[in-house]
Amino acid sequence: MTDWYRLGENQHVIESGERAFHYGDGLFETIAIRDSEPRLWDHHIDRLLAGCKRLGLDIPRSPALRRRLEVGIRESDHNTDFCTAKIIVTAGSSQRGYGRSMPTQAAIYLGLYPGVPLKPQAYNNGVATIMCETRLAVGSPVAGLKTLNRIEQVLTRSECLATGAFEGLTYDADDRLICGTMSNVFIVKNNAVRTPSLERCGVAGTMRRHVIETLGGEGRDVDVTDLNEDDLAAADEVFISNSQIGVVPVHRCGGYKWVIGNTTREVMALLAKNGVNECRV
Amino acid sequence: MTDWYRLGENQHVIESGERAFHYGDGLFETIAIRDSEPRLWDHHIDRLLAGCKRLGLDIPRSPALRRRLEVGIRESDHNTDFCTAKIIVTAGSSQRGYGRSMPTQAAIYLGLYPGVPLKPQAYNNGVATIMCETRLAVGSPVAGLKTLNRIEQVLTRSECLATGAFEGLTYDADDRLICGTMSNVFIVKNNAVRTPSLERCGVAGTMRRHVIETLGGEGRDVDVTDLNEDDLAAADEVFISNSQIGVVPVHRCGGYKWVIGNTTREVMALLAKNGVNECRV
Repeated sequence: MTDWYRLGENQHVIESGERAFHYGDGLFETIAIRDSEPRLWDHHIDRLLAGCKRLGLDIPRSPALRRRLEVGIRESDHNTDFCTAKIIVTAGSSQRGYGRSMPTQAAIYLGLYPGVPLKPQAYNNGVATIMCETRLAVGSPVAGLKTLNRIEQVLTRSECLATGAFEGLTYDADDRLICGTMSNVFIVKNNAVRTPSLERCGVAGTMRRHVIETLGGEGRDVDVTDLNEDDLAAADEVFISNSQIGVVPVHRCGGYKWVIGNTTREVMALLAKNGVNECRV
Repeated sequence: MTDWYRLGENQHVIESGERAFHYGDGLFETIAIRDSEPRLWDHHIDRLLAGCKRLGLDIPRSPALRRRLEVGIRESDHNTDFCTAKIIVTAGSSQRGYGRSMPTQAAIYLGLYPGVPLKPQAYNNGVATIMCETRLAVGSPVAGLKTLNRIEQVLTRSECLATGAFEGLTYDADDRLICGTMSNVFIVKNNAVRTPSLERCGVAGTMRRHVIETLGGEGRDVDVTDLNEDDLAAADEVFISNSQIGVVPVHRCGGYKWVIGNTTREVMALLAKNGVNECRV
């Protein structure tokens, strides 16, 4: 039987031997709850299971996890028409020392947080971004996964907050464009949509997958490839994706500026038709 | 005023918003306590301060930290002639979200753990190691620092435990030899001592620094440089270092075998003279 802990209610629910605290030994998912239902559940579960396989963590199957989340949603004091669930899966408590036997029975934590919708201007007029100075390490053994090792995002996001920009874009140590601090990035050139490969670092977002699959379903394949500053400079349009906000146009990054073009509008309209109401502008 | 928390006494001392739990947003030091004194204190503090500077964390000055550790040692139930202190410095609790304003007043946690001395055979006959399959990411913005983002070490150490080897050596994603899962590595060729550069990944161990400084004080500079499998294969001797065990000879890694030679013996004798009693064989 897996233990579930409710975050936010008991301030001291986390045991002092918890490996997530000592080593970041675990994973998480941040799930948009809309009309009391978890959005893109299958995408979140797929990534979580891929992470559990990589880290040697045993968790219950998807239906059991979902039932438990639904109990949390029902019991929540938040407005569950529009809120955020965070599921944290960890290797639990242990003695001191990096190693453990694998697979390890996971501990699971659930937190529900109020939703914070973006203002319509963000979707209508786009958002400003900066280019972060901090670079992402290359060749991570957990590339693409959403682990609890997020110091790179703490550093890049804090850079961004200090400037007041909505988001910061990041390069890896080899000058490849990878993602935003809390989002994935897409660039449009001559109506073709491309997004960075996340084989070497970065987090493969659920909304990124939803965008790729939605466009693919329209016969417009997204090119997942290596991109760099030249590609960004030459782009006609740029947009970012994130599970909580859907897709948002980007009108600038530092000195580079872009229009909010037809392709971005089309992507947003498709998403709005396809379960991501925030993109309805 | 900085809060201090004592690990291990209260099982639930960690707040559910703690950023170390959510993001690994912090640093740690594992300090050998010998005769009730912290060994290599200045080296630990130097690395901790470098980490705090990088992560934008504010902590008390070294004398205040040391006095607090000494109180912990005095009040400990462990045999403080030979035990281990772990100091964890974190960004404390916050709302959900990667970013924070910097500098952040740190939260500090202290744990004292029983010491586990190695058997004399390890120092006399050397230890067996494996080469880990997991590679370390390259170009980390926190290379050399001992952050709480340690999934790479969880993966490599768990590989090692599964084989029963004493330690696992690790390459980075570019095939450079970097370190052990819980130690640093030195190779000896024609009496010259070399150790991998940690500019791109890895943790710069306090005992590694002590070895480099001790040998430097004898007019035998350690070459800190890029090393690879060819260097390992051609080595006359190999040894590892760690704050808790000092220096231990390595007699094999997978198919490569080495003698326990004069240089390793000399290093161990110098350390034994210089405060690391475990190396007295």
